[in-house]
Amino acid sequence: MSGDRLTHMDEEKRARMVDVSAKDETVRTARAEAVVHVGEKVAALLRETGGVAKGNVLETARLAGIQAAKKTAELVPMCHPLLLDHVDVRGSLDGEEVRLSCTVRCTGRTGVEMEAMTGVSVASLTVYDMCKSAGKGIVIESVRLLEKTGGKSGTWKRENEKR
Amino acid sequence: MSGDRLTHMDEEKRARMVDVSAKDETVRTARAEAVVHVGEKVAALLRETGGVAKGNVLETARLAGIQAAKKTAELVPMCHPLLLDHVDVRGSLDGEEVRLSCTVRCTGRTGVEMEAMTGVSVASLTVYDMCKSAGKGIVIESVRLLEKTGGKSGTWKRENEKR
Amino acid sequence: MSGDRLTHMDEEKRARMVDVSAKDETVRTARAEAVVHVGEKVAALLRETGGVAKGNVLETARLAGIQAAKKTAELVPMCHPLLLDHVDVRGSLDGEEVRLSCTVRCTGRTGVEMEAMTGVSVASLTVYDMCKSAGKGIVIESVRLLEKTGGKSGTWKRENEKR
Amino acid sequence: MSGDRLTHMDEEKRARMVDVSAKDETVRTARAEAVVHVGEKVAALLRETGGVAKGNVLETARLAGIQAAKKTAELVPMCHPLLLDHVDVRGSLDGEEVRLSCTVRCTGRTGVEMEAMTGVSVASLTVYDMCKSAGKGIVIESVRLLEKTGGKSGTWKRENEKR
Amino acid sequence: MSGDRLTHMDEEKRARMVDVSAKDETVRTARAEAVVHVGEKVAALLRETGGVAKGNVLETARLAGIQAAKKTAELVPMCHPLLLDHVDVRGSLDGEEVRLSCTVRCTGRTGVEMEAMTGVSVASLTVYDMCKSAGKGIVIESVRLLEKTGGKSGTWKRENEKR
Amino acid sequence: MSGDRLTHMDEEKRARMVDVSAKDETVRTARAEAVVHVGEKVAALLRETGGVAKGNVLETARLAGIQAAKKTAELVPMCHPLLLDHVDVRGSLDGEEVRLSCTVRCTGRTGVEMEAMTGVSVASLTVYDMCKSAGKGIVIESVRLLEKTGGKSGTWKRENEKR
Repeated sequence: MSGDRLTHMDEEKRARMVDVSAKDETVRTARAEAVVHVGEKVAALLRETGGVAKGNVLETARLAGIQAAKKTAELVPMCHPLLLDHVDVRGSLDGEEVRLSCTVRCTGRTGVEMEAMTGVSVASLTVYDMCKSAGKGIVIESVRLLEKTGGKSGTWKRENEKR
Repeated sequence: MSGDRLTHMDEEKRARMVDVSAKDETVRTARAEAVVHVGEKVAALLRETGGVAKGNVLETARLAGIQAAKKTAELVPMCHPLLLDHVDVRGSLDGEEVRLSCTVRCTGRTGVEMEAMTGVSVASLTVYDMCKSAGKGIVIESVRLLEKTGGKSGTWKRENEKR
Repeated sequence: MSGDRLTHMDEEKRARMVDVSAKDETVRTARAEAVVHVGEKVAALLRETGGVAKGNVLETARLAGIQAAKKTAELVPMCHPLLLDHVDVRGSLDGEEVRLSCTVRCTGRTGVEMEAMTGVSVASLTVYDMCKSAGKGIVIESVRLLEKTGGKSGTWKRENEKR
Repeated sequence: MSGDRLTHMDEEKRARMVDVSAKDETVRTARAEAVVHVGEKVAALLRETGGVAKGNVLETARLAGIQAAKKTAELVPMCHPLLLDHVDVRGSLDGEEVRLSCTVRCTGRTGVEMEAMTGVSVASLTVYDMCKSAGKGIVIESVRLLEKTGGKSGTWKRENEKR
Repeated sequence: MSGDRLTHMDEEKRARMVDVSAKDETVRTARAEAVVHVGEKVAALLRETGGVAKGNVLETARLAGIQAAKKTAELVPMCHPLLLDHVDVRGSLDGEEVRLSCTVRCTGRTGVEMEAMTGVSVASLTVYDMCKSAGKGIVIESVRLLEKTGGKSGTWKRENEKR
Repeated sequence: MSGDRLTHMDEEKRARMVDVSAKDETVRTARAEAVVHVGEKVAALLRETGGVAKGNVLETARLAGIQAAKKTAELVPMCHPLLLDHVDVRGSLDGEEVRLSCTVRCTGRTGVEMEAMTGVSVASLTVYDMCKSAGKGIVIESVRLLEKTGGKSGTWKRENEKR
């Protein structure tokens, strides 16, 4: 059972790329979320300057996340190239936090968890970049998978989705 | 004073790339950290299988982080290309957590905070990827800048460095 | 009917990547053309120096265009990664103009119009780059789709193909 | 005098990368423009759906253009890698046309004309991509350099800037 | 019969990308090898410093090779993008030589010989890079295909596999 | 003295990126060579079909090598990004061998040996790719540095340059 071992390490404990050639091509989805704690001051600036109302910080983060999801196999060494059918990144300002999520869909031989995690991570980095002039103390918290579907292991859902 | 506004947004509230041509070329450094909460089971597997003793999960994460730091301007839309003089990523297993840090040094016209943040984020994603077969619930927590030096704004240190 | 709206914008007017998971995998082709107006002097130099006879400006442009077509999803944010089966770029000097075309073929869930447009654009930029020492006034004109086949919307042909 | 020959071809008529090691490091700028003829119907949709008012088609194009300018040396074979200090892409809807411009600034040994041309080309491709569902007949016209400054050849301005 | 001509050149002797749209999607594998002659001194250092025992030179080379195999279509102009199912790079120190091999598996319309050759080449370059401080005279020798399977031309094996 | 140890491994035997921030920015050059043994049949085809006379196999290889040299830091994990001032790749058919060389020049804080080695390796892979339909047995031999200049270690020349 794969749940009890690290399939990304071979018998000699070296990192390896899992061979997916025998896996079925099925529709697979994944959804990940991150929370960027921007603090009171940056949150106020985002509201005042229209950064969120006009959507530019979030819109830039969304595009960066979508582009990054497509680059996952270039960034994470053991990931397989995949033909993503859909990537969506959404963001909202909630109190002192920017909450970002990334949903990925693919028809392929392996799951898209890493694509969702990468998309939401780079979207978070972009929020950090665009807000850091007003607060270097911003922290990216709780980058985590919320749900995946498809493949042999089927559906997985995080029990307590809300952080 | 830059600390009170979002320099990455122009007068019409659009995202923009800051013009750094008038800035001095100085030595700049940045150090960022992230904590990957892998949980008890994965931590045990990492210890048992030698994944940490032999260093392969951490070694793969280190290399992925170094490579990603060099790609920052490709990932984060408003970042400038920079000639990095040095990138180091370090990792250790501490209880149920993998703690990763990334240090970047550059001689250039703008800081390397984003390079350090990107390096540590992709190193964290790689730990997640290599351990996810044994636990999808892994969470990347507290991706944050610890320190920066150089440039007009000089040295900045996070007050309470330990998460 | 998709012809009456911008499918690349969602209900909240944000840019989005269309979900193609429900589309059929069919053979799709596209052909695009561009005209680079190089002017009399550069055209003469291209003829005299063998730049065209020996094919080097055009050969370099052809290769750059083929490589760029493979990078379309990296360049155009809402494009899907695709497994291109074939890319061809052709060029000829016609009076004061270099005429370039790019044909792309793919078996996939979405069309290759953007790949053909990107290939011919970057081929044109390469002609510009290689000739600009002799004339900065060069203009890339009429980058346009000539024909597409495959997919639900079927065949489309530009009515007056010759510019 | 470089104006009379193709410096991108060597004595054997092969494409070559110019050796810039003896050139001075100076501030260099370039500005390029393109016009995307979207037609009446798409122009109306852009106005109605807020695509332009809210800025999403143009904002996506702006970001794609900025990112592409940073990738110029990867796309155009004989271009040198450069540390861009600033890239800006601007766009506006003017009747049936989207007018895009790209300004690039750099401190380096060679000019940034190709970066400005590449930025505005990929921004144009992005407008095409996001509008093509409503009109495949869209044409990218007049991709051209408007002005350059810096370097040995100094300032160059297109005589009749308005297309 | 393709064995008697260069299918990568068209009727006008220009380089071309072969059209694979009519080929079957089958499982294809390839295995390539290279030998890096590091010399006595570097071989001793690799043994003494644990560079091989701990695996770090080889581990870094392995990861670089895996990542490079995924980038083949970006590096070799006429290669097609492919969805690699598996890439493995292995290395060992044998006397004064580091012997590296790369195995690639894919379900697709064209073979993976170039992916195996690219993976083993970049792994070799990485060994060179990590050892060159102790000996610039290192030579990468005998980069060659050992075996391929799948596709219309079926299985091919090098007759004398051992160099 | 760096000649006696592997500077790419740190005190804990992990791979590391050397810190070059204290090094001087000087002009540095490197030249590398490779020999592709194509065999009698392919050599004849290259001569007959004009593949070499017209230069297309070699021209494609040259461009691929130039492009790859610019990507070195992306391919070889511990390499630093560098602003290459010049890259040249040359090739010739000599009996049954294609001989390729790559010369790189840079003003920077670290040498360009790896850029020259990477350029000539990818040029060789491209020759292999374009000729493999007529002979899978082609071998890339003797990828090696011939000369380097600049930096603290100064000039180094291979004693017996001719293989």
